[in-house]
Amino acid sequence: MTPRRTGRRPGNPDTRDAILAAARTAFADRGFDATSIRMIATAAGVDPALVHHYFGSKDQLFRATVDIPVDPGELLPAVLVGARDEVGARLVRLFLGVWDSPAGAGAVAVLRSAATNEWTARLVREFLVTQVLRRVLDHLDMAPDELPLRGSLVASQMIGLAMMRYVIRLEPVASADPETLVAALGPTVQRYLTGDLG
Amino acid sequence: MTPRRTGRRPGNPDTRDAILAAARTAFADRGFDATSIRMIATAAGVDPALVHHYFGSKDQLFRATVDIPVDPGELLPAVLVGARDEVGARLVRLFLGVWDSPAGAGAVAVLRSAATNEWTARLVREFLVTQVLRRVLDHLDMAPDELPLRGSLVASQMIGLAMMRYVIRLEPVASADPETLVAALGPTVQRYLTGDLG
Repeated sequence: MTPRRTGRRPGNPDTRDAILAAARTAFADRGFDATSIRMIATAAGVDPALVHHYFGSKDQLFRATVDIPVDPGELLPAVLVGARDEVGARLVRLFLGVWDSPAGAGAVAVLRSAATNEWTARLVREFLVTQVLRRVLDHLDMAPDELPLRGSLVASQMIGLAMMRYVIRLEPVASADPETLVAALGPTVQRYLTGDLG
Repeated sequence: MTPRRTGRRPGNPDTRDAILAAARTAFADRGFDATSIRMIATAAGVDPALVHHYFGSKDQLFRATVDIPVDPGELLPAVLVGARDEVGARLVRLFLGVWDSPAGAGAVAVLRSAATNEWTARLVREFLVTQVLRRVLDHLDMAPDELPLRGSLVASQMIGLAMMRYVIRLEPVASADPETLVAALGPTVQRYLTGDLG
């Protein structure tokens, strides 16, 4: 098999689908960290090089399984540098920028699905921990034993914002201008990241 | 028709179901405030007295449509009296007490349904506003123009907590002891209720 390097061709849809299905199962069952491209290739009955060809890196393949069109690894660094006491506000602003954009419709669909499908819930959990929270927390130089609680508190506020703004659509959060929400929620996220949790 | 006052008999299941279906439609379409027992009775083709007989008050009928087994009108007053600067912590504690209890399974089911069903989402929205937030905010003597934003911010944190603890089950929020979460989230809810929102 000679994988092409263009990455533009969709390839054989059956093969792509088989790889995606194997990846979903593996990531949901074993978690992101314990899953390798090689395991997924074996489960799908293809060569690992073909997985890389179709999907790129393990991060990219994982994002494809949850159908999330943005790459937190590209977006997050810009908000994690700069004044440490405003990282909460910058994170809320970035979050709203993505979810309010056309890409947000896909994120809302994933959130809806996670609410009713245990597998999607597991994938979302893995996505939050490995693609978002780990990157945020790595930049903030905190006590490692505090990271999980701080990360999951941030996730609780952000996912709650997404539920109220895009799914349950409770006003005025549903149609508030982003900066109103940045002012209201920024200090919450800031405290969860760097403040005293009692 | 002579309604019995015991309230124990299930009555004719078809009639009850017809009333519930009419109530769901009316509450979701018109909202709680603009819906009357009389309208629901007319839509279901029954006498209003029969609606009262089967379901009690409009509040009780509404709770039956969303299948929520607790009455915020009974639970909330106890946490709304007392030191005003700890009402956030008391609300988080009450919320966890209900959702961690056997009654919580019903609430989680409603939340899952609201994520994928527009009608349930509308009913949850009405429930939050009329059964929960209105009662909380009425007790706190705030500027009326601030009430909707403050209420929907509280809802965003509480629903996010429910999503993370019971649906997506992100650790350690999923299995943290309640007082850890009260300490972490209480100040957030307190600020949304009574603090400076920027």
